[in-house]
Amino acid sequence: MSVIRRDITTQDWVLIAPHRGDRPHDHALVRDAHPVAAHDPSCPFCPGNEALTPPEVFRIPEDSNGWAVRVVPNKFGVLTPEGPLQDREDGSLFREMTGVGVHEVIVETPLHNGGLGVMAAAEIELVLRTYQARYQVLRADPRVACILIFKNNGERAGTSLVHPHSQLVALPVVPMQLRQKVAVAKQYFDDQGRCLYCDLVQAEVEAGVRLVWISEPFVVFHPFASHAPFETWIAPTQHQPSFGHASREELATLARVLKKTLQALADALGAPDFNLILHMAPIADETRPYYLWHLQIIPRVTTIAGFELGSGMAISTMRPEETAAIMRDVMAHDNRGGQ
Amino acid sequence: MSVIRRDITTQDWVLIAPHRGDRPHDHALVRDAHPVAAHDPSCPFCPGNEALTPPEVFRIPEDSNGWAVRVVPNKFGVLTPEGPLQDREDGSLFREMTGVGVHEVIVETPLHNGGLGVMAAAEIELVLRTYQARYQVLRADPRVACILIFKNNGERAGTSLVHPHSQLVALPVVPMQLRQKVAVAKQYFDDQGRCLYCDLVQAEVEAGVRLVWISEPFVVFHPFASHAPFETWIAPTQHQPSFGHASREELATLARVLKKTLQALADALGAPDFNLILHMAPIADETRPYYLWHLQIIPRVTTIAGFELGSGMAISTMRPEETAAIMRDVMAHDNRGGQ
Repeated sequence: MSVIRRDITTQDWVLIAPHRGDRPHDHALVRDAHPVAAHDPSCPFCPGNEALTPPEVFRIPEDSNGWAVRVVPNKFGVLTPEGPLQDREDGSLFREMTGVGVHEVIVETPLHNGGLGVMAAAEIELVLRTYQARYQVLRADPRVACILIFKNNGERAGTSLVHPHSQLVALPVVPMQLRQKVAVAKQYFDDQGRCLYCDLVQAEVEAGVRLVWISEPFVVFHPFASHAPFETWIAPTQHQPSFGHASREELATLARVLKKTLQALADALGAPDFNLILHMAPIADETRPYYLWHLQIIPRVTTIAGFELGSGMAISTMRPEETAAIMRDVMAHDNRGGQ
Repeated sequence: MSVIRRDITTQDWVLIAPHRGDRPHDHALVRDAHPVAAHDPSCPFCPGNEALTPPEVFRIPEDSNGWAVRVVPNKFGVLTPEGPLQDREDGSLFREMTGVGVHEVIVETPLHNGGLGVMAAAEIELVLRTYQARYQVLRADPRVACILIFKNNGERAGTSLVHPHSQLVALPVVPMQLRQKVAVAKQYFDDQGRCLYCDLVQAEVEAGVRLVWISEPFVVFHPFASHAPFETWIAPTQHQPSFGHASREELATLARVLKKTLQALADALGAPDFNLILHMAPIADETRPYYLWHLQIIPRVTTIAGFELGSGMAISTMRPEETAAIMRDVMAHDNRGGQ
């Protein structure tokens, strides 16, 4: 029988309907299985084609002709950094403001066929440092209210280009979803005197059944109110609202944790398409006692359909207790080491 | 330049980024183009295979061996109608209740290759009457808090079976998204003494630029804060919170309006996959002065990716003013008539 679980962070419900994965499908999942080369002469993110992108805003290493990680403005960005934020509030029901903000692409590696799952932990660390460096620069822009960093891996996850890359969007508004999560966390803090997310992480550690791995100062788990099969959270075990405050050492550990987690997901699911989302407090709340930054990985193994669009509620077809056990088993049989 | 628009019904923001549709794609959109037969001997929804589904709960016509529309419990339902609603609220952060509710499939036609876009208006009317009949029966169940009726048309919209069908889910909880929409509408009513949705429909009629068609007592438009290119609303021009109260005559008109709208979307976009969602007030609010039922059609021409999942905000790659003009143009050149 299915169950309805409450997501304490959003106060919304999710449906966990395990037998639903058994239903018949007229459509087979077609996979683009041809091998990808290490270099694609027509790819705008491959070395040698730097002129095909808008002018670079950041690179590692800084003082070199070559690069390991590179950041460029998104040529087809959803927001543009020029001009003032103009709000046309005319008293009507139709409020509109100019699309001022920042939309950047973080090219994670020079290798066209690379990716966070196959890169060395030291290389992933450079990507995480880049996330942090860009966050620190952009958070200082007074027009920016919140920053979202994410990665679309694979076609079902919304990638338009194969070359491994993440994206950063700096918004002049706080999305309602984040505003509500912050309001919920703030209310909890007012009631309890503690951070809701820290309590949730602690409760998951104590429950144990949805725990994947603890590698201090991080914990990997499949949340009680999972939105999709194998949804995975990587969260700090100590309170830290903003990713901007993570230390160099923490980023190094996070790189190893992320690599091993992505490998386990690939082993369990066969290289699934996924979205990786770095959740952070809005800029105005980044030092408050009531939010915790975390990484969320959502494998795209089911399709978001009418029920989800019409209700905002998620349906997961596997219990997180079951998927976490699979992850623990896969990790126990992994002999590749942490590098 | 892109713009940020406020969705007055949810108080969230949407990004309208028209040039984003120009970006390059490594992945071509692959379409399953082989023709579909009128009857598939292995399809559980085709006539002759009635024994492959759980026992029928409704059919039109009632007293006949044949059927035009048929309703059966979803064999792989996300909720089950048996048993009490048990809530395990143990004071922890992990609240769970039994998955009690109803999940039904509305088989829209005996024809395997039919569909709302190609059926006669009189046949669509029977489907709409079926929606209403099931709504009326299920709303009386004290365990049901709200009812969602939707259709997933095509693989990208989440269909698992080709045979034309809609789905109904009766939930024991009100999704947060709907709860917030109702709260926003209630606040507006308290402030203004009018229904927010009726004011919005009236404002769209007066603005005209996003209007597709008026066929009293319905209006078809592309909303100011569209969540996707060609998102289409069909709404009553008079206040009516619940679809359960629509008259027989209104359903007949709605069938013609829906058929013509789906034809125009097919003409404009080349038979896009789409979700159709029938939005209704929660049962407890169905006679209140502050909500308006409406049909929302979302063509699935883009992929929901990390930005949307991470922020809850939508990105549309076309302005609704532009898409509405295309729809008006397509409709002006349609000589098929309304049947």
